[in-house]
Order: sequence, then structure tokens, then C-alpha cells
Amino acid sequence: MRLLIIGGDAAGMSAASRVKRKNPDIDVTVLEKTMDVSYSACGMPYNIADPNRDMEKLVVRKAEVFIEKNRINLLTCHKAQKIDPDKKIVTGVNSNKKMFSFSYDKLLIATGASPMIPDLPGFDRPEVMVLKTLENGKMIKFFIKKKNVKKAVIVGMGYIGLEMCEALTRRLVKIDMVKPGPVFLPWMTSDLADVIKDELRVNNINLYPGHKIKRIDPKKIGISVVCDNLSLDADLVIVASGVKPNSHIAVEADLKTSISGAISVNNTLLTSNKNIYAAGDCADAIHVVTGAKCWIPLALRANRAGWAVADNVCGLETRLKGVVGTAVFKVFSLEVARTGLSVKEALEAGFDPAEIFIKTRSRAHGQPGSQTIHVSMTGDKKTGKLLGVQMVGKEGVAHRINASAVALHAGMTVEAFSQTDLSYAPPFGPVWDPLLTAANQLMKKL
Amino acid sequence: MRLLIIGGDAAGMSAASRVKRKNPDIDVTVLEKTMDVSYSACGMPYNIADPNRDMEKLVVRKAEVFIEKNRINLLTCHKAQKIDPDKKIVTGVNSNKKMFSFSYDKLLIATGASPMIPDLPGFDRPEVMVLKTLENGKMIKFFIKKKNVKKAVIVGMGYIGLEMCEALTRRLVKIDMVKPGPVFLPWMTSDLADVIKDELRVNNINLYPGHKIKRIDPKKIGISVVCDNLSLDADLVIVASGVKPNSHIAVEADLKTSISGAISVNNTLLTSNKNIYAAGDCADAIHVVTGAKCWIPLALRANRAGWAVADNVCGLETRLKGVVGTAVFKVFSLEVARTGLSVKEALEAGFDPAEIFIKTRSRAHGQPGSQTIHVSMTGDKKTGKLLGVQMVGKEGVAHRINASAVALHAGMTVEAFSQTDLSYAPPFGPVWDPLLTAANQLMKKL
Repeated sequence: MRLLIIGGDAAGMSAASRVKRKNPDIDVTVLEKTMDVSYSACGMPYNIADPNRDMEKLVVRKAEVFIEKNRINLLTCHKAQKIDPDKKIVTGVNSNKKMFSFSYDKLLIATGASPMIPDLPGFDRPEVMVLKTLENGKMIKFFIKKKNVKKAVIVGMGYIGLEMCEALTRRLVKIDMVKPGPVFLPWMTSDLADVIKDELRVNNINLYPGHKIKRIDPKKIGISVVCDNLSLDADLVIVASGVKPNSHIAVEADLKTSISGAISVNNTLLTSNKNIYAAGDCADAIHVVTGAKCWIPLALRANRAGWAVADNVCGLETRLKGVVGTAVFKVFSLEVARTGLSVKEALEAGFDPAEIFIKTRSRAHGQPGSQTIHVSMTGDKKTGKLLGVQMVGKEGVAHRINASAVALHAGMTVEAFSQTDLSYAPPFGPVWDPLLTAANQLMKKL
Repeated sequence: MRLLIIGGDAAGMSAASRVKRKNPDIDVTVLEKTMDVSYSACGMPYNIADPNRDMEKLVVRKAEVFIEKNRINLLTCHKAQKIDPDKKIVTGVNSNKKMFSFSYDKLLIATGASPMIPDLPGFDRPEVMVLKTLENGKMIKFFIKKKNVKKAVIVGMGYIGLEMCEALTRRLVKIDMVKPGPVFLPWMTSDLADVIKDELRVNNINLYPGHKIKRIDPKKIGISVVCDNLSLDADLVIVASGVKPNSHIAVEADLKTSISGAISVNNTLLTSNKNIYAAGDCADAIHVVTGAKCWIPLALRANRAGWAVADNVCGLETRLKGVVGTAVFKVFSLEVARTGLSVKEALEAGFDPAEIFIKTRSRAHGQPGSQTIHVSMTGDKKTGKLLGVQMVGKEGVAHRINASAVALHAGMTVEAFSQTDLSYAPPFGPVWDPLLTAANQLMKKL
């Protein structure tokens, strides 16, 4: 059997390696448009933060290893351009401008997502960068050093923009963040978003939400991001205003797409064509809480979906259950985490949400080093079910969120969750875990 | 209505305060044998560690506050001795040797647990102490300073003994640990127990398991714990060899007891007498995984049970679901956590357990500061269900365990747990959370 994979990142390489482990007889070819496979993309901001750390350290496994050890026909600098689902052929072009063509029995589209770049004058300037591929990361790092960057503008206020704040601050770069939308973190309950805003303020990050961006102008030295009533000078602009699924090649092949244009897949990761799978940031998923399709492009799902495709290709039927949208990121000394639905998302999904917000402590009474933990929890008044949790704090957030994520998977009520037996020891939390205190409070509103 | 409560610790005071909040008309009397109520008993080792921290800092709420603000008739130094369930009267003696007698409509027994002290010569010496009450804690702290303690023997190798290792080491006290049983931590899988043993060795703690203790002898300076083939000199001996439920008063009143002699309660915390509740360390609980009665005396359950009694006394019927035995403690730089059943416990409960042990990392590839995380996970071959998890590591253990605790409450299979959407960001873990990696491995054995 010939398995062809478009895209050699998390989903694509997970699938390729696992297929070869499970059934070495399957012929596996991977077409990767960049030079790099198998690196920790999420680790790039933390690497950029440290001028002495080589970015190659983020490479988990080199292409040669996949080729020689795993016997995968891995072709970097090969950009797939077209799928012919009837002839079962993928054509494209490599970096030497040579056309190529591969036939397949089974195809996996793992083309990932791309940064959204405003279609405005000046966004094509060399000082304007995105952080998606390892090449992007290397470029930013090189540029900071070479040009002695002192001032950056980050366009967008999402995870990556916020992670880059810490990275650039460590490089002594002053930062302005700007975006057209008026609300700083629209998916986050405002009490928690305010905590993050305070942390950014303490770290001298200037926030300019609600400013329509018009263009980027060159200046005598550096550039300037020109907005309504505002111009922000910079040596470097990082565009981090979201991503979109790379589903163009699937659309052209008449495959079904869904929310946000992601490729629609069933729980075996099959697309609307029975010989074509899709996995990773280009594909959709079921949201366990709503039961509806969602597009939440994150690394764990990409790896898990890659494995599931491999198992299905090898005849070991595997069905994925779906996601609950758990995410965590770091903003300077803050851990920020979420799982499930925000109140707005819950309303949109037809729930009747009630929300509470509490402040509690990260350690027991009388323990030094205790920090404030902020928790927002949302439940459904109709069914009593837990719908979502958001947390912000300087410690004890990143892993704590997982207890509520599992509760969402289990479809627990807030009452059932409030009765769970969570860990307690003075250095790690209060007797009543912050999540339990939140659940106890929320029950009164349901 | 008159509610009488025997015991003014976690369960008793939680119940008393909540009853007064929900229904101020209920007359609440608490009989506490010591002088102290409402303090963080679990915080004592951490307080002892720091000579400059006042132990009164562990008091969450003073007795006067309960009396004046909450209008609770709180009587410290009042030791209840006898319950007459027919006349509904409790009699006892106070610290002035005066007899007292109180009638009740509803009674809560919240007498807690007591340290088990070997009935051997010398264990009544003043240098031999336990750590249970605040008075015990103060005494140990005072003794360390006054007697300039340089050498201690800890009898027992449980949570409290291990926590005291760090506390005493910080006070520059050299430590030997000794116990009769041959296995260091019998409930823990040996691969993980070995990690803890190494941590103790690095911190110069000497372990002597498998030594039958014969007596404690006085020496010219200090004392000596005399065992088979071993004598351990010390200025101070801490006895931390487990606790037993204070159920004597309940037994005398013909109330039913169960496992380990704990007072048997139903899911509303009622004992075998319809006017008498029991809660906290003196009472039993249902283990969610086995469905059987268990006795796992821990702080969260005590507080939760106290609240549930209060609600039931106030006519707001509340049923508790049970525990899964989640516990966490700190051994020097290690976080040690468990939830659910060990393999041995699973076998005893009639399961057909399979177990895996993995080593993984606390942070993503290429992140500095990453530590080893050791995970053991047990599942049932017959049903595929998750049965228990144990973890040891220098970071990312204490809260991570809770995801598996919730999965146990939900009765999840290992396969369902392996599909949960847990958080990922490079500073906080690998893409596949250690629990997911463990679940993926365990599935191969089920």
C-alpha cells in the first residue's frame, strides 16, 4: 500500500512514523514544503528569548533519521499543489522548480495552518515577520541580533503575541501591541483578562486594542505601524493575528470543509473522500461540550490525529472522541489556562450559562510563597453541567486546568465535579482546591 | 434544635460554622478536648522547618471568633467521654476536672484520629513525640530550640514522617528513619518508591526498614531507639507510624464501625443511629473505584463531610459520593502523588490489574529546567477501566494527579482517559502529557 502525506509537521510525521512502526511494508511518502520537520514550534518564543540557545535545539528528530531509520520517503522542499482524487495523484513543485507527481492508495492532508497577514500596504516589508515555521523563528532571532532591535510592534493579542512579549522583553526589546478589535482577550472573562493586562502593564507592554491598522510606512530608521489616531514606531513588526487552515488544496479537490474553512473529517479522520484523511491544524474536530464541529488548532490534537490516521491506515480502527479546547500559555510570570466554553460560546451553543469568578490562593493558609489564583467557571442552568473553566495565576494553573478538562470529557455536572477528591498538601494548594471552591460557588447559581 | 458536636477540628468546625450560616436558629455546641480549633494541621511540618515563623500563623480562625461572630457555643478543654443514645445525652469532663453533660437533638461525632504509639518501654519518655495537634507541633518546635536537637529518629515512613524529614533537615537535624515493616512505601510501586529513596539518600536521611523496635533507652545525653541488630541514638524521637480512628466513644454507644474500626456512615454521614452523624478522620467512606467501604483520613474529605452534615441537619439533603484516595506530599524537592488503587489494592478488590511505569519529562523538548516525571498507571484487564495512578517528580506532579482523580470519579476507561484534551505549552509539559503517555502505554497491556 502507498500512503502519501502532504505536510511533514506534527500530524504528518506522527502518522508517517506510526505507520512504519505498525506496518513497515506500507510505502510512506511525505511531501513537506519547508526544509524542516519535527520541531517544537510552540517552543520558539522561549528559544528566541535566549540569545545563547541554538534554535536547532528545538528539532526533535532530523529528516535523515526519518529517512534512514524509519524508512520514510521524506521529501522536504516539496510543495504539493493539486490533488486529483479520481486518479489518486498529487502533483506539485519542488524548490528546484521541478514538477513532481505521486500516486497514492491513501492520502493524508496535514497541511497545517498559516498566519493571517493583513492585506495592507507595507506588510510585505522585510521588517514584518510571522512566527509559524522554524525558518520564521530563525529569521526573527537573527534579525533581533543583526539589527539590534530595540522596539517591536506586535499586531494581534493572541497566545503567540503574548508569548512573544516575554521573549522580546528578555531581549530588552520594548513592545507595543495593537489590534483592531476593541476587547483585549474576547474569549476570556473580563475579570481574568484584567489580571493579564496588569501583568503586561507591570512589564511595560503597551496595549492598543481598538485601533484599525492602515499601513506600515518606512521611516528613516525602522518602520511605523500607522493606525487610526496612532502611529507606532518599530524596528520589527511581528504579525500574530491568528491563523487560518491550509485547506485550499482540499477545497480544490472538492473535499468538504466546515467551520473556519477547516477540512471536515469524521471520527476516523476521513474526509468526504474515502481515500483521503486530514489531520492537524488543517482539519476540524468535534467539540465534546457542544457536540458540534469546531476548529481549535493545537499541537496535542494534531499528534493524536496523526496517530489515529496511522492506525486506521493500518487497519486498526481508531475513533477520536473530540476536543474540549484546553489551552495554556505563559504571560511573563502568569500561567493562563482555559478549557471548554466561555459564557459567550455557551450562549451561542444554546446553553443557559451561569458563571462565577473567584479569587483564592495557590497554597494553604500560613504557607509562604502563596499566590492569588483567579478562577472563572461556567455551568449550564438547564442541565447543571460543567461547561468551561478559565484560570490565571502565578503558580498552580497549568496542570490544575486538566481536572476540569477531564470533567468536561465525562460530561460531569458541576455538583459531581464539586465532589471530586482532588489532592491537598499545604505547599500545593488550599484544602479546597480552587476548582472545588469555584464549583461550590457556581452550584448556588445553577 | 440542638446540634451537639464532639470535636472541634476540620469536620466539627466546618459543620458548626455552616449550620450557623444556613440556620442561625439552630443551637450549636462544640466540645473540643484540646485548646485549639481551626488550624492547618497539615501545615505543621512546614512551620517547624522555619524557626522564625510563629506557629500561631497556622490558626485559621480563633475560638473567640467562632463564639462571638458565629454564635457557636464552643467549649475547648472539654473532653466528651460517653454518649447515651437513648437519652440523647453526652457526658464528659473539662480541664478543671468538672463533669459536664449536654443533651442533643442531633449529634455529630468528629473525634478525628490519633497517632499509633508502640506499646513498648520508653515510648512515654518526654523526648518521644507525635505530630497531631497544634500543641504537639508547638512542643516539637520548642524542644528543637530549647534542647538544641542535632539528631532525631523518626519511627515510621509515612506521609508525616517524610514531611518531617525536610522540616528537621532545615533545622540542621540529622535523621534516621526506622520501622518494622520491610518495604519502604508498601502502597507505592517499587520503581517510584526507589526515586523517593534516592531523594532521601541525597539529603542524608538514613532508612532502616525491617527493624523490629524493642524499646527506647535513656543515654547519658539523649536517648536510643533499640531495635533488632540496631541502636539509633537521638535527641528527639518522632513517632509517625500511622493513625487510628477515635471511634471508642462510638463503639461504647453501640454504633456500627467498619474497616480499621472507623465509624460506619451512609452517604448522608448518618451512623447506625438516626440522630448521630460522624464525619472526618473518625468515619469511613465509600471508595468510588471499589464501591466498598474504606478509611482514608484526609483533610478535604473531613471538611466536605462536615459541610454535608450541616446541610443534612438543616434539612438540605446532601449525599456524598465517595473518595478515590487522592493524596500528595512533598519529600524535599520531590512531589509525590497518588490516586485510586495500587496493584495490590486492585488485586484485593477483585480486579485483574495491569500496570505500567514510565519516565518522561516535565517540560517540552528543548525547554531548560525540564525534570524527570515518573508515572505508574494501573488499569483493569476485564473492563479496561482506569484503577489508579502514582506519580513522582520535581515539578508538575501535585496538580497533574487531579486529572486522573476526576477520571476515576467518572469511571473512565484507560482508553477514554487517553483521549482527553489536556493542556500543553512548552514550559509546563510535553505535547503528550505524562498521564496521556502512561495511558497510551497501559492500553497495550489491557
